[in-house]
Amino acid sequence: MSARKLRLGMVGGGRGAFIGAVHRMAARLDGCYDIVAGAFGANPAQSIKDGVALGVAPDRAYPDFRVMAAQEAQRDDRIDAVSIVTPNHTHFAIAHEFLAAGCHVICEKPMTTSLVDAAELLRLTRAAGRIFVVTHNYSGYPMVRAARELVGSGALGALRVVQVEYPQDWLSTRVEATGQKQASWRTDPALAGVAGSLGDLGTHAHHLLRFITRLEVEAVCADLSNMVAGRALDDNAHVMMRLSDGARGMLWASQICPGNDNALRIRVYGEKAGLEWAQEHPDQLRFTPLGEAPRILCRGGATASEAARHATRLPPGHPEGYIEAFAQVYADTAELIHAQIDKRAPNPLATVVPGVVDGLIGVGFLEACVASAAQNGRWVSVRIDCPDLLSLSR
Amino acid sequence: MSARKLRLGMVGGGRGAFIGAVHRMAARLDGCYDIVAGAFGANPAQSIKDGVALGVAPDRAYPDFRVMAAQEAQRDDRIDAVSIVTPNHTHFAIAHEFLAAGCHVICEKPMTTSLVDAAELLRLTRAAGRIFVVTHNYSGYPMVRAARELVGSGALGALRVVQVEYPQDWLSTRVEATGQKQASWRTDPALAGVAGSLGDLGTHAHHLLRFITRLEVEAVCADLSNMVAGRALDDNAHVMMRLSDGARGMLWASQICPGNDNALRIRVYGEKAGLEWAQEHPDQLRFTPLGEAPRILCRGGATASEAARHATRLPPGHPEGYIEAFAQVYADTAELIHAQIDKRAPNPLATVVPGVVDGLIGVGFLEACVASAAQNGRWVSVRIDCPDLLSLSR
Amino acid sequence: MSARKLRLGMVGGGRGAFIGAVHRMAARLDGCYDIVAGAFGANPAQSIKDGVALGVAPDRAYPDFRVMAAQEAQRDDRIDAVSIVTPNHTHFAIAHEFLAAGCHVICEKPMTTSLVDAAELLRLTRAAGRIFVVTHNYSGYPMVRAARELVGSGALGALRVVQVEYPQDWLSTRVEATGQKQASWRTDPALAGVAGSLGDLGTHAHHLLRFITRLEVEAVCADLSNMVAGRALDDNAHVMMRLSDGARGMLWASQICPGNDNALRIRVYGEKAGLEWAQEHPDQLRFTPLGEAPRILCRGGATASEAARHATRLPPGHPEGYIEAFAQVYADTAELIHAQIDKRAPNPLATVVPGVVDGLIGVGFLEACVASAAQNGRWVSVRIDCPDLLSLSR
Amino acid sequence: MSARKLRLGMVGGGRGAFIGAVHRMAARLDGCYDIVAGAFGANPAQSIKDGVALGVAPDRAYPDFRVMAAQEAQRDDRIDAVSIVTPNHTHFAIAHEFLAAGCHVICEKPMTTSLVDAAELLRLTRAAGRIFVVTHNYSGYPMVRAARELVGSGALGALRVVQVEYPQDWLSTRVEATGQKQASWRTDPALAGVAGSLGDLGTHAHHLLRFITRLEVEAVCADLSNMVAGRALDDNAHVMMRLSDGARGMLWASQICPGNDNALRIRVYGEKAGLEWAQEHPDQLRFTPLGEAPRILCRGGATASEAARHATRLPPGHPEGYIEAFAQVYADTAELIHAQIDKRAPNPLATVVPGVVDGLIGVGFLEACVASAAQNGRWVSVRIDCPDLLSLSR
Repeated sequence: MSARKLRLGMVGGGRGAFIGAVHRMAARLDGCYDIVAGAFGANPAQSIKDGVALGVAPDRAYPDFRVMAAQEAQRDDRIDAVSIVTPNHTHFAIAHEFLAAGCHVICEKPMTTSLVDAAELLRLTRAAGRIFVVTHNYSGYPMVRAARELVGSGALGALRVVQVEYPQDWLSTRVEATGQKQASWRTDPALAGVAGSLGDLGTHAHHLLRFITRLEVEAVCADLSNMVAGRALDDNAHVMMRLSDGARGMLWASQICPGNDNALRIRVYGEKAGLEWAQEHPDQLRFTPLGEAPRILCRGGATASEAARHATRLPPGHPEGYIEAFAQVYADTAELIHAQIDKRAPNPLATVVPGVVDGLIGVGFLEACVASAAQNGRWVSVRIDCPDLLSLSR
Repeated sequence: MSARKLRLGMVGGGRGAFIGAVHRMAARLDGCYDIVAGAFGANPAQSIKDGVALGVAPDRAYPDFRVMAAQEAQRDDRIDAVSIVTPNHTHFAIAHEFLAAGCHVICEKPMTTSLVDAAELLRLTRAAGRIFVVTHNYSGYPMVRAARELVGSGALGALRVVQVEYPQDWLSTRVEATGQKQASWRTDPALAGVAGSLGDLGTHAHHLLRFITRLEVEAVCADLSNMVAGRALDDNAHVMMRLSDGARGMLWASQICPGNDNALRIRVYGEKAGLEWAQEHPDQLRFTPLGEAPRILCRGGATASEAARHATRLPPGHPEGYIEAFAQVYADTAELIHAQIDKRAPNPLATVVPGVVDGLIGVGFLEACVASAAQNGRWVSVRIDCPDLLSLSR
Repeated sequence: MSARKLRLGMVGGGRGAFIGAVHRMAARLDGCYDIVAGAFGANPAQSIKDGVALGVAPDRAYPDFRVMAAQEAQRDDRIDAVSIVTPNHTHFAIAHEFLAAGCHVICEKPMTTSLVDAAELLRLTRAAGRIFVVTHNYSGYPMVRAARELVGSGALGALRVVQVEYPQDWLSTRVEATGQKQASWRTDPALAGVAGSLGDLGTHAHHLLRFITRLEVEAVCADLSNMVAGRALDDNAHVMMRLSDGARGMLWASQICPGNDNALRIRVYGEKAGLEWAQEHPDQLRFTPLGEAPRILCRGGATASEAARHATRLPPGHPEGYIEAFAQVYADTAELIHAQIDKRAPNPLATVVPGVVDGLIGVGFLEACVASAAQNGRWVSVRIDCPDLLSLSR
Repeated sequence: MSARKLRLGMVGGGRGAFIGAVHRMAARLDGCYDIVAGAFGANPAQSIKDGVALGVAPDRAYPDFRVMAAQEAQRDDRIDAVSIVTPNHTHFAIAHEFLAAGCHVICEKPMTTSLVDAAELLRLTRAAGRIFVVTHNYSGYPMVRAARELVGSGALGALRVVQVEYPQDWLSTRVEATGQKQASWRTDPALAGVAGSLGDLGTHAHHLLRFITRLEVEAVCADLSNMVAGRALDDNAHVMMRLSDGARGMLWASQICPGNDNALRIRVYGEKAGLEWAQEHPDQLRFTPLGEAPRILCRGGATASEAARHATRLPPGHPEGYIEAFAQVYADTAELIHAQIDKRAPNPLATVVPGVVDGLIGVGFLEACVASAAQNGRWVSVRIDCPDLLSLSR
């Protein structure tokens, strides 16, 4: 891969952050990016200090994202893209600023805290003509790509049932009361938005369902709970779903289930076969044609499909994990950016990375679930109020 | 175990039956019963023929259950108990007849096809003073007993979330159209009652939840589907549940999910720990105290509890299975019958076998789910219209 | 199955015995046998008492096996077969006695404590024209039958490597010093014979290898250890093997490996495919054709072979276990006995049960391993000194 | 980590190489190295071309390793360290050259193709005062570090049995005859040395055993096979081992077992507990204290030890894999180099990376196994002919 390395900036991700460090490893792994600028924290002095500690040149370690956007725009070697790894409530303003400055955007999920903001980002992205990627990183796993391809090939026949779940246990007690940074913002409606476990986890599960099945969630019936006393947002979310083409589904997200670290898992059943994928053992995909012996498809193996091979770095039996999947989103994003620079069509296998439309649909799903729960589980349609925009390319 | 063998009769379970043969192996395994009489089929001549083939003396191989009840009642060596292994719609009439004849009853699930009938059986059982057991056989597994004991000990703390599921795949196509006997009656409302997958599988899942957690399902919000064209009853059931003590749950039953043979599985989460049990690997129980390493509790192992040891026959590592669990229900029932004969208190570890009240609550659950689905997923209370009866002993 | 029930006697298996109770459940499960006589212990009075407690008629609860053999021979309703479930050193004398009395014999493993005795039993069995079965019960598992059939079908191609292991942990400490009955005789050369873990476990592993692969062990290179201080017999056995047709193998048996309950496991690799079976999850067989996705073959499933279906009682997903596998050996033995009574050929699927020749070969394997270890791991041929006998039918 | 990035050169790893690309990702992941120079292939022109394609400046893309060593030595910004990722027979000469030039060395395994060469490298490394690391990369997995710490803590008590195995299947057919580059050199004694599967896989298994248990292999009894016709080196290796402190072990390496991708696995048993780790699911460690329920220790979890936390990048449930483990070896090597530059003691947690002594012991193991097999499985001592050197620091 001899294309020039892209210049990447980052907003958020300073000391003590979890996901910022992951983005940096992901950006580094395949040698597609140099991280050259950033506003790494909310405190200006600390932001600069963190930047230098992370190896950014002192003049590009900025006190805040607005200064960063403005000053980068003046440089000849300005950043190609920005990664936004801040709490949810700030995504919109930051993305807005950098789109306006002509940058491509790589943004954490959920994309925004309201559907109105999401629609505005979609419009801005279209107007700016930039690449906008939402880091639903689980879509970067090779066997998730393989699952999508299997479903797309018709191997499962018409889909009937989808069960997706994403339980964790780290908020089983009131961790936020201890001042733990990750817990504090995720349980605070002012920073996280209207949804807790549903926003943090459910939105990944929802995208995974859409990514693999190519079905849309048409209506939801939700039951949201705050199990830990004193918590304002849901920490357990039960959702029944009506999917396109007459399929049915269940989604479960939880932060309070002891024994679950990061147990995202999806099962898809069609007329002819089923498949199952579990994030904690990502290199395997269970494929179960009706009336045949279950098969364990392995990443990198003899049976790996083109889409799976595109997303893998190692032979079978040499485990790949979370960072590699995240890196795949970064690598595919690099391909989209290079294609735009080179005025050529991108590699079709890279175009599956989640974009601004996916981000918008995710926010719409969250809002519908919250509305359903507020109405004691009435079925609520997932309305996307900008049908004209949905027809646009990423 | 030198108590005299009990004399058992059977209604149903002739040629081509699945569950009748299981009941016979279960009755035989621990040497507690001799099967001495039966009306094994709906066709009188075949019924007699099947009885003889099964080793029953010719004069006790009966043409139908009414003749059987009447003639057995005349004998000095009359049957102590009857096993009812016929399609659902006949359970009520048969149980009625044998209770009236003074027999103890072991009955397949769901106990009846209406809550009214279930309440009537409860009254009859009380009036007759007989043992009435519903074969929710999964409660006979040692590690299910262990799970119940763990929850009861407070090891999980207050319960918060219960996820129970029971998918199968054998009705993924319209098998009933081929004349397959098992499929035909289970998909026919006239024989199976108001529920399909929910009645056949969901009722087991529901009892398992109640058995392990000692929680009751207070309200349900259900979405029932007939995925296979031409099928009258649900073959996929999604249910959200509000449980006693503020817990929440999801239940999923399905007959159309390729790759699932008999994948009953339950996960229970409390403030302090979680547990997980999967029927296809029944000798293990995953126990996950918050903040500690997950532990795999094994049947028969050093850590086995008294309730688990009561229900086990072999040392750890020597797999027990479905027949053994079913046999445990039979063995515990024998203990209840012997205790009544001997006018003594039964072994408390045997008293957990599901009784007529459990059967009634199961039917109530089915009716509530069907009502909820009919009202587009409105939350419906699980009403048990005979509170006076529920306070009665089994 | 309307054939008359066979009359079974038992030697050994009184109070506190493990394997005797298993044999009784196995005999009972399929309704092929009535246990009508026995000498259940070494102490005459206790032997009689145990027999009565086990439901045997008082006049057939015998003080010892010689009296039993003699008196049964006088009866019109004498036993058809005897089960020998005593410590190893007594197998020969008991089998000898009952063969002489015209009984069929079902005998625990290892068949004898010397190759000379084994050869004598083979001669006696031939002379008596009786059925002699050695309870290598693991050969009764449906997926072990399926594995044998797969190999036999050529699906693996020429075999190259076989890895078989059987670790347990129950003798990790000097349990025998506590007076535990099971441990005491198994660690005592006077009762158990020349081999400890190798005799108790290795002989099962050795038979499983032969059963599935149809290869013979031609030479062994063994390293036997007594890891627990004060123990006379091996509690860990490492063996390298040269197999027929140029294949190679490793066998490991151990009683001192914490975390292993009864972890018998075999892996077989040929030119074209591999397979793997683990006793603690017996319903699955992993089948791995070279260059294809691994397949999980399930008992009772769509892909079950004839031999597997012959040995199964339940649909897939309804776990079968150790007792069922043991029962299969009993059921197949019953078929062999009935065929002899009826002067007809037995069901070929039943003829795979391990017989006296298998018992002899097992003893030969033990002796060769002990000889190799005694010579610091010299390769020693497994010599069967009666080639004329090996050509005989069971 | 604000220490300056180290300058890394690479020998080997051009087009079509597998392990070279892994080394580059590993070097990149944590931002510790820049790859600035290299001689990437045996063909001079191609070597230069590959270097440029890999992003190396044209003047540092060298035609061969001797030119590289000589020219780099002239530069002010010369490389700190060199990675040697060539076939085995060249390791010695390349390492020799770069040690002489004052470089630290990171070398693939087996370190050399003879014990004499290995001893010479040990002397050179000592004389040069450089860091020499052998990439036994599996020692970089967090749960392998945790396993070593568990054993070291005495949690298992005195060790008794170690079972280690490393089967693959990619050489089940004569792949080398097709011209496949990876297969060709690994099966050619002139390039790979005296051992095939044993050198490629067994040497990793051997190091893993030593790393986790801190035991040494004192003597071996080996049976090596060439199962695929026309192959000169072993493709299946069976080894029995006598370990220090009276422990016993088995090692199995194979390249011809269908269904095994990269199935390195180790089981260690002591008086008080056992542990088990399997490379294909590296984030879990099974720990089995005698008489307690087995525990599943997870990377990053509440129970993670200091050594495990040192080697991990992500919270539990976010899978790490092969590249991360490899990167850990690179990161720890960077720490050793920086400590030497800074004249300070290195982080003790980094000092466990395998060094030149480990490389030497690995070669000694291979030679002993080959000698044993050549003498029909005689027990052969693993002799390390330079006891004075073994007492030296890395």
